Amino acid sequence: MTNFKNNDFESVMLGRHSVRKFDTSVKIPREELKEMVANAITAPSACNLQAWHFIVVDTPEGKDKLRSFFMKFNLPQLETSSAIVMLFGDTLAFKKYRALWENIYEQKQISKEELDRILNTFLPLYENADKQLLTADAMVDSSLAAMQFMLAARAHGYDTNPIAGYDAKKAATALGLDPERYVPVMAIAVGKADSQSTDIKSTRYSVDDVIEFQ
Amino acid sequence: MTNFKNNDFESVMLGRHSVRKFDTSVKIPREELKEMVANAITAPSACNLQAWHFIVVDTPEGKDKLRSFFMKFNLPQLETSSAIVMLFGDTLAFKKYRALWENIYEQKQISKEELDRILNTFLPLYENADKQLLTADAMVDSSLAAMQFMLAARAHGYDTNPIAGYDAKKAATALGLDPERYVPVMAIAVGKADSQSTDIKSTRYSVDDVIEFQ
Repeated sequence: MTNFKNNDFESVMLGRHSVRKFDTSVKIPREELKEMVANAITAPSACNLQAWHFIVVDTPEGKDKLRSFFMKFNLPQLETSSAIVMLFGDTLAFKKYRALWENIYEQKQISKEELDRILNTFLPLYENADKQLLTADAMVDSSLAAMQFMLAARAHGYDTNPIAGYDAKKAATALGLDPERYVPVMAIAVGKADSQSTDIKSTRYSVDDVIEFQ
Repeated sequence: MTNFKNNDFESVMLGRHSVRKFDTSVKIPREELKEMVANAITAPSACNLQAWHFIVVDTPEGKDKLRSFFMKFNLPQLETSSAIVMLFGDTLAFKKYRALWENIYEQKQISKEELDRILNTFLPLYENADKQLLTADAMVDSSLAAMQFMLAARAHGYDTNPIAGYDAKKAATALGLDPERYVPVMAIAVGKADSQSTDIKSTRYSVDDVIEFQ
């Protein structure tokens, strides 16, 4: 079912680090990029809204669009990676929600009562929500899927670099999305690490610095 | 180094689903919860700011605090899980940033020039940023760590349920954090799934619905 080349969880998660220079001879097939996205969207999301949208940029024309709003600092990844995945949060994901659950009901996975309860409990929360809440929820959902994408890429034998350094105001429009609806979450460069590259492994704060018990 | 009970990546990631009813006889040792958080914070973060903060609630007194702002719908997880991890974004994480990189420099991992470049490039972006950007960045960072926490929990033999349904305005204050500084991102119930429980496995949209190539 999956085409994982590395199925060792410890190596996938704890061995991940950001790669900024990729092997330019490596081209990931679209079918495999799609598989990695399919792996990623098994992530959970608030009320199962799945408020994520992936634009996989793997053509020279697509990369030219990214060049128009990327920070100079991140151009090496743009130039050398096989693809850049632009991840957007869909603030109107709730509009597809009714059809999703009606489908689950039609497949007899839930009863009519459960269907009604789900639609009557959650849908109004979103239909009546302000832009700030819809944006925050879409960003959290998309980030969960983003993390899974980076791990799935490693399982497929690739490395990644998540990128926040671009002009977020221009991202959606440059890629043909409605900027009122889609909020940029992050870019992820994906490819095979250049074997000559000497990326430093980032230091983390000690766990004691970021945890407390109550 | 790690105490993973399940190191099969496919089983960890693709086998994860939300568990809403846990085995109340299972109590996860704090040392193991800390290990899971340590695994989780290998996640990447924007500019390595690591803007996450974990409050692990595993006492009756702590759970009483959560009861004061959780939605009724999520009380079964609160009652039955071994712990609830409250994840907050730290909007002032940049205040620790200089010390972190000076430490990396002192360990001779980067040159003085690299240190200066990093501090002069990124720190001003955050020192001059508005609250909205700091909040968004902290939420994205924390969500990446949250996803890794849920996967790490599975590698440790546990299950999770990410929870958005609580009064976000009350969360920080109820747990003794400064609500101006810390933004609530999500709650994650963790424990061993109740063997009698019949949680439905959520349906996802097809990958073709959420991906496009450019």
